[in-house]
Amino acid sequence: MGGNTKSRPRVAVLSPVAWRTPPRQYGAWETVAGNIAEGLVARGWDVTLFATRDSITAARLHAVVDRGYEEDSSVDPKVAECLHIAEMFEHAAEFDLIHSHYDFMALAHSRLVKTPVVTTIHGFSSPRILPVYRKYADGYFVSISDSDRLPGLNYVATVYNGIDLALYPFQERGGEDLIFLGRIHPDKGVHLAIETARLSGRPLIIAGIVQDAKYFEEQVKPHIDGARVRFIGPVDVAGKNDLFARAYALLHLNTIPERFGLVLAEANAAGVPVIAMDLGSCREVIGDGATGYLVGDAAGAARCLEQVPRISRKACRERVERCFSVDTMVRQYERVYSAVLEREAGKIA
Amino acid sequence: MGGNTKSRPRVAVLSPVAWRTPPRQYGAWETVAGNIAEGLVARGWDVTLFATRDSITAARLHAVVDRGYEEDSSVDPKVAECLHIAEMFEHAAEFDLIHSHYDFMALAHSRLVKTPVVTTIHGFSSPRILPVYRKYADGYFVSISDSDRLPGLNYVATVYNGIDLALYPFQERGGEDLIFLGRIHPDKGVHLAIETARLSGRPLIIAGIVQDAKYFEEQVKPHIDGARVRFIGPVDVAGKNDLFARAYALLHLNTIPERFGLVLAEANAAGVPVIAMDLGSCREVIGDGATGYLVGDAAGAARCLEQVPRISRKACRERVERCFSVDTMVRQYERVYSAVLEREAGKIA
Repeated sequence: MGGNTKSRPRVAVLSPVAWRTPPRQYGAWETVAGNIAEGLVARGWDVTLFATRDSITAARLHAVVDRGYEEDSSVDPKVAECLHIAEMFEHAAEFDLIHSHYDFMALAHSRLVKTPVVTTIHGFSSPRILPVYRKYADGYFVSISDSDRLPGLNYVATVYNGIDLALYPFQERGGEDLIFLGRIHPDKGVHLAIETARLSGRPLIIAGIVQDAKYFEEQVKPHIDGARVRFIGPVDVAGKNDLFARAYALLHLNTIPERFGLVLAEANAAGVPVIAMDLGSCREVIGDGATGYLVGDAAGAARCLEQVPRISRKACRERVERCFSVDTMVRQYERVYSAVLEREAGKIA
Repeated sequence: MGGNTKSRPRVAVLSPVAWRTPPRQYGAWETVAGNIAEGLVARGWDVTLFATRDSITAARLHAVVDRGYEEDSSVDPKVAECLHIAEMFEHAAEFDLIHSHYDFMALAHSRLVKTPVVTTIHGFSSPRILPVYRKYADGYFVSISDSDRLPGLNYVATVYNGIDLALYPFQERGGEDLIFLGRIHPDKGVHLAIETARLSGRPLIIAGIVQDAKYFEEQVKPHIDGARVRFIGPVDVAGKNDLFARAYALLHLNTIPERFGLVLAEANAAGVPVIAMDLGSCREVIGDGATGYLVGDAAGAARCLEQVPRISRKACRERVERCFSVDTMVRQYERVYSAVLEREAGKIA
């Protein structure tokens, strides 16, 4: 840590390079990494963001990959990741702490540098990557919900993702539509949202990138009629706010445990009640009966829709301000950094 | 390099983990890495081989991956590579020199350790990986033929692959069949071998793994009749020697520049003349008119077949003994290691 511990610690934030930081539309990991970098800068930290060259940040930007590999077919994802991660670690000595938002690939470099590495695990992409986490189990890990933890890892804290509240202004009144917002993938239960719409007789608007084309063709597309069920593709922040303005409730009937669920917080921030599957982190993000309802299936979701008017839109906003703001998240990461830096100082002393 | 430079330098050989080292059948990179490790041990070096746990070596074996990911579908290739490469570099301080047989992934770790890394480039898997080589262009590189070089890289030498001569005994006499031995892939020109067989009226035996199923279905399978053209799948060393025993000549009509061409040396070692496309390294491995013929197309190959009896089978063997033996290769690598260790000692002094 050099002789710099008494001045401002120098933090490197390692964002993925699948998308720009912050992403134009989809890209949850880059969104959170970007929010942390901006929040830290606002609170006076010395931050270097390692991200794509077209990223937008108030931090010092360090880039070796021009554009996100999801946005540039000329780039090999493995090569981009390799160059990006290696570059960061080759500069490790310039930092007091590295905050990695990477899946396992960065861990493989972590023991080759002296700078401590904090890894926020945004999700385990597959059970087949767990051997890497087990090898590096004594690193410093942060979970994004209490429910999304791998036993045996050295977790320092759970820090909920924070959203930029300014991007999702509170809307006093909603509309009559049900909305689905997320990747079109069976994990996200688009088919259950459609079923809920049918059971409740309410119209549904589906927005998001098609990640599973077969699922879309077979279980979503046949229901799209442009009236009861509409599909509008991916939306940016403005598009999300338009949807929130006409939303009666957001349906988030995930079929596998949710890891955090950024969109739940975004909808609540705008005042939109959320009907979520009681699976994974949803219970931590949504206050059952306060900012939405936790359900077990589409029938339960349809039943809960009748009670939506009981939810205070203001209470939705307030919970997000309290628990899921960038500011809250950044303050919690400051505590994580302090704990790690103290532990490292102890190792050296 | 610690205080160990006056005693035997400690060398780490980093073999890939796609297959066992040495591989059971296919696996050229593992074959060469294994030959180097065995050859170095035979010549008194202190060698640690990083390879799959089921590898067979006289060197010290260091393994974190049980079996080659090509032989074990439960293993994620990216995860296996990541664990394997990271493990090696985490032990870098125990070695005076690392000899990597990896594609670009190991380079990404190379600047994070003090131990010098020599990379033998067995092939550039795609033009999209070249940015990684360019970033690490000042490393120590070895090409496996003069023709397979990327301009701008710091090449220390060309070292031809060496084969274990004991595995491919000289056979005084061959047979009447043409043989093709290699991956079934358009790059390897199986279709040109078939055309040559047709033009010359000689029977052809094709052996190898089907790497491109569509190519096999469309351009190889329709010609297989069990008589004029036979396909026998992949073969091990014994299978290769059986083929060499009945071979009139080996056809190797590659359609892209060959990088080295182990099978050319193996065939020659057994005394089998080789008809090869004059593309890439073939000109370096085959003595035109001495151990085979270099040609430009199938018609040229068919014409040259008439001259095959002029080739001295003994001369084929002798050229391999002289140029492509494990012993020759290992002596050349010893010179490479000495040059690198000297240069590194100069850096430190």
